[in-house]
Amino acid sequence: MYDRIKGFRDFYPEEMQARRWVTDRLESVAGRYGFREIGTPALEQTQMYVDKSGEEIVEELYSFEDKGGRDVALTPELTPTVARMVVAKQQELSKPIKWYSTRPFWRYEQVQQGRFREFYQTNVDVFGSSEPDADAEVLAVAADMLTELGLTGDDFDFRVSHRDILSGLLDSFDADVDVREAVRAVDKRAKVDREEYFELLTAAGLSVDQAEEFDEMLQVDTDELDTLAEWSGSEQVGDAVENLEAVLSAAEDFGAREYCTVSLTTARGLDYYTGVVFECFDSTGEVSRSVFGGGRYDDLIEGFGGQPTPAVGFAPGHATLGLLCQRAGVWPEEALSTDYYVLQVGDTRSVAARIVGDLRSRGHVVETDVADRSFGAQMGYADSINAETVIIVGEQDLENDEVTVKDMESGDQTTAPVDDVPGDRERPTFDDFA
Amino acid sequence: MYDRIKGFRDFYPEEMQARRWVTDRLESVAGRYGFREIGTPALEQTQMYVDKSGEEIVEELYSFEDKGGRDVALTPELTPTVARMVVAKQQELSKPIKWYSTRPFWRYEQVQQGRFREFYQTNVDVFGSSEPDADAEVLAVAADMLTELGLTGDDFDFRVSHRDILSGLLDSFDADVDVREAVRAVDKRAKVDREEYFELLTAAGLSVDQAEEFDEMLQVDTDELDTLAEWSGSEQVGDAVENLEAVLSAAEDFGAREYCTVSLTTARGLDYYTGVVFECFDSTGEVSRSVFGGGRYDDLIEGFGGQPTPAVGFAPGHATLGLLCQRAGVWPEEALSTDYYVLQVGDTRSVAARIVGDLRSRGHVVETDVADRSFGAQMGYADSINAETVIIVGEQDLENDEVTVKDMESGDQTTAPVDDVPGDRERPTFDDFA
Repeated sequence: MYDRIKGFRDFYPEEMQARRWVTDRLESVAGRYGFREIGTPALEQTQMYVDKSGEEIVEELYSFEDKGGRDVALTPELTPTVARMVVAKQQELSKPIKWYSTRPFWRYEQVQQGRFREFYQTNVDVFGSSEPDADAEVLAVAADMLTELGLTGDDFDFRVSHRDILSGLLDSFDADVDVREAVRAVDKRAKVDREEYFELLTAAGLSVDQAEEFDEMLQVDTDELDTLAEWSGSEQVGDAVENLEAVLSAAEDFGAREYCTVSLTTARGLDYYTGVVFECFDSTGEVSRSVFGGGRYDDLIEGFGGQPTPAVGFAPGHATLGLLCQRAGVWPEEALSTDYYVLQVGDTRSVAARIVGDLRSRGHVVETDVADRSFGAQMGYADSINAETVIIVGEQDLENDEVTVKDMESGDQTTAPVDDVPGDRERPTFDDFA
Repeated sequence: MYDRIKGFRDFYPEEMQARRWVTDRLESVAGRYGFREIGTPALEQTQMYVDKSGEEIVEELYSFEDKGGRDVALTPELTPTVARMVVAKQQELSKPIKWYSTRPFWRYEQVQQGRFREFYQTNVDVFGSSEPDADAEVLAVAADMLTELGLTGDDFDFRVSHRDILSGLLDSFDADVDVREAVRAVDKRAKVDREEYFELLTAAGLSVDQAEEFDEMLQVDTDELDTLAEWSGSEQVGDAVENLEAVLSAAEDFGAREYCTVSLTTARGLDYYTGVVFECFDSTGEVSRSVFGGGRYDDLIEGFGGQPTPAVGFAPGHATLGLLCQRAGVWPEEALSTDYYVLQVGDTRSVAARIVGDLRSRGHVVETDVADRSFGAQMGYADSINAETVIIVGEQDLENDEVTVKDMESGDQTTAPVDDVPGDRERPTFDDFA
């Protein structure tokens, strides 16, 4: 007997059906917004990730040398691949480019609740628009995905921030600040204690007083964002506030404003974000981590050798999203569903097969016996797959040109003329023959 | 600019849409037969493949040592994983177990037409029935998948054989035959010249005369299969012929017999098959390789440490299947489709967003401007995504409470009251307002 590899999962049909339901809903919403599905490789050059994220990324990659001597890595995220694809066909692709895809990614990480070494994400990105409407469309498709799953505004909250507000505020201090380190400190604000947070900020170059003033600024109310530009005297902050407000205004038109809270202490850990960033949280706090996040990354395509191309996107991870759905009671029941089981008693295969074929041609899920089992074994199996209706094709009934139609929930059954099953009915049930 | 890894592919939206159409159809048929989707890991222990296929398999694996010191491999096929999953929950799973899944696999192979290092398959398997009906159900679901794609009996042919006929015939010779090697020789019969084929058979232990007699036996007509048992004097051959005929008889009831030709020279290369095997071929021969194949493998689960569990399955590879579909002219057009583009002229976003939302809530694919573009640029974009209908929301029209509805194929356009778009129409078009 072989073991599964740690951090990797098998999905048996019941759980898989629930996962598929979620994936289908996410993709259906993306499709209605005009995002188009793409397909991407599982392996890329390791160098691509090193260039984007630094040497330290290798520690969490499944990387190796392939038989052709290439340094390759199992893709830990989609963004670099998508950037590569945009650059490869930049001239021919009409803009904006709107793409989505669902697939697994791999990171050698500590396994914990909602975090695996093989994990699934649906990535959604827009390339080629720097307008606030593109940011707002991303917020709107994210919100519609969650409401499509049955979640409401009581369940989740998008905490929206802007990288240029953070960096503009940091630059406005009379200090030699490592903005990247300071932004990382902000990203850790809710995850570490206050002392450690301030240590990180001072390590990034702020004095203790400046760190306190900076942190105070981050907690400004939404309707007082305008004061930040004046407070800091930074034009960059003023522009960023204006951009953030324009995004929220477009989100209002797109029906997503109600899910958004301005939260400047939301920073996103990744270095490549350049404008609006957001994270989705469980409103109850029961799912303690960020469910997913996204934002604007206008410099990446150019960094990958392409023409300057603004971009904004997000990627719900299915594990944390599943935790949120479960917490909110909208995770679908993990149970098989089957429309019909056609039960054979004696040598009735050809008649049973005719009925099975007719029902399948109407799109129904239909099983029949392929294991030469007894009546009882077949009925037990039909029960185990939650068959709604069992059609019993027995030798004796057939002598009278009849079959038996049984409703599995009530247990009621009745006979029906064999030639009349299914007849011209789209979805015959016990009631049609009783 | 980064390069894609050799043998790996990017799928842009047009091609991906065609691929998704094919995948959806394959999975829809599997679902109607009551096969249930499972989800499986991309990495497994390398040892699992070595035990099943021998040390030489490592040559074509993407295998490496992970950061925890595990010898792991990117999965080159699904069967060992599925066997592991069956063994892990053998007691609780109700039988027969009917599973399907679509996903990529990886082999370090020579790249050629229809063969890549990352390739996609839909695997379909039944565990827990040794009855001919299970083999026939596999043939039937395979045939229904192909006809669902628009292929007909003129396009493809299932060549059906039986491993026990081959091995029974081989055992009946007065010679020390390496059955495994001889079966591999048969599998190569159509791929090598006659001389090499006979060399392989004699290397496996047959004399030249015996090899010729054996090859003559393989070409027996379907209605003369019964003569083989007598000819060889082998009870195993007699039983296998009976089993093959029972499978074909069940396939007749299931509507798949018409696609099947008995072809004892079809052997399947893999060692683990134990009963009926089949390969799907392009009837015209234009796709020269086997499109896909499958068969019975009753010993694998026990070999993986489980209870003896008969099994039968198949796995269409999407690359060769695509070649067949293209040859037969049923490969879907690789073009985007879009129901509506809502074009904004001037500051009309809130009205446009209302119309967009109404149309999306009806399930349509709807795009609107998120890049603040000119009328011409938006119209060009709408054309590039093959929008069927463009709804123009212009400032001037709105002063009269009107929008313009344009049919993109004819170029016809008309105005419509803004409050009446979409109104209570499920799918409003130009004709509704003209």
